[in-house]
Amino acid sequence: MPLAVVLVAPRNPLNIGAAARALGNFGFADLRLVQPYEVAFREAVSAVGGATVLQNARVFDTVAEAVADCSLVVGTTSIGNRELQQPIHTLEASAPLLRGHIATAHAALLFGSEKFGLSNEDLSFCHHLLRIPTVPEVPSMNLGQSVAVCLYELVRDPSAVAAPSMRRPVSGADAEQLTTMMLDLLDASGYTNRIVAVSTAQKIRRFFRRIRLEQRDARLVLGILRQLLWKLKS
Amino acid sequence: MPLAVVLVAPRNPLNIGAAARALGNFGFADLRLVQPYEVAFREAVSAVGGATVLQNARVFDTVAEAVADCSLVVGTTSIGNRELQQPIHTLEASAPLLRGHIATAHAALLFGSEKFGLSNEDLSFCHHLLRIPTVPEVPSMNLGQSVAVCLYELVRDPSAVAAPSMRRPVSGADAEQLTTMMLDLLDASGYTNRIVAVSTAQKIRRFFRRIRLEQRDARLVLGILRQLLWKLKS
Repeated sequence: MPLAVVLVAPRNPLNIGAAARALGNFGFADLRLVQPYEVAFREAVSAVGGATVLQNARVFDTVAEAVADCSLVVGTTSIGNRELQQPIHTLEASAPLLRGHIATAHAALLFGSEKFGLSNEDLSFCHHLLRIPTVPEVPSMNLGQSVAVCLYELVRDPSAVAAPSMRRPVSGADAEQLTTMMLDLLDASGYTNRIVAVSTAQKIRRFFRRIRLEQRDARLVLGILRQLLWKLKS
Repeated sequence: MPLAVVLVAPRNPLNIGAAARALGNFGFADLRLVQPYEVAFREAVSAVGGATVLQNARVFDTVAEAVADCSLVVGTTSIGNRELQQPIHTLEASAPLLRGHIATAHAALLFGSEKFGLSNEDLSFCHHLLRIPTVPEVPSMNLGQSVAVCLYELVRDPSAVAAPSMRRPVSGADAEQLTTMMLDLLDASGYTNRIVAVSTAQKIRRFFRRIRLEQRDARLVLGILRQLLWKLKS
């Protein structure tokens, strides 16, 4: 996908590596670094070995060069005390704009350095800003984690719903077999007595319907009941 | 929110710290660790100093104890070669189930160790499993990043849309003032000639409508044009 993830002046090799890994995890490939702390970059590249995203990462001197081929540039911010000059959207609201754009053209997503975020100079290259919905008390996220969260939002499937489970509930006959065997067992163990026998039978019958066992669970329970019954009677 | 994030046998202090930070970022507070590598845990606690999530994290000997108060337990997996015995949902599909549950009761979200993920023993405590939608080629995520992505999904606002920008586009009169001044400037600079004057005027007029300047931008451009005109004519 034609989305470039641009890390501006990253300092920590672990964060560079983590950002690269997130690109890989979510199917992105274009990592760009603007003036990375050089030792950090070399360490990050050597640490991950075969990670192709990092091997193919490009280094630029300026934000201008890093986003030169991008017709939409989005900057990430935890909205500090700076007076922002651009529209700012939450990640959820920004994602459709980004997704729409990269369907036909190149876009860049900018992340600032761990310590200072994006400068006002960096932000002036952006068409809009994006804020991950963190709580006001702890607004600032770890760099690698922000990259992962943003890319996840871009690829998440809004229509996903939990598939109905492939449950195969027990039939009425199976439920009744369970009921009968359990009643035998309760009888053999002295749990039931003649006075409450009928109400116990109904209680157990309702119980085996209520818990909606699956077929394989019914087999498991039947096996256990059979063994217990055999042991009690032997 | 009554969601416990349970890290089972984490090894790396940075990951423990990153997970704790993600809880803080997204407004969660209940971090539990099952048999953390002890040195790692101590390092993590000392590294973040005041991070209350980590200060309040509880350590357990077993998964059973860690989830004892939770009536829904969800395990995370990158779906490896294990034969999974439980229903598995994507994060997007699992989140509504978790959100619904923690509205009234406690739930736990389990993350396995960096190296091995959750064991089959750990998974047997889970009601269902959750998979972050990573690409098949690079399925396995960094621990701190998975925690961040899962918690983000739980708090994201599905109804968020980009607010209409507070644009105040220039009026017809302003657009015409820009047109006139630009034409004056083009005339003074020798850009226009009599033969194409009319078509140039129309071209410039259309241009200033097409770009839909905002009022403040119109003031900026007018100021620039005025200065250029003054300089050319002096």
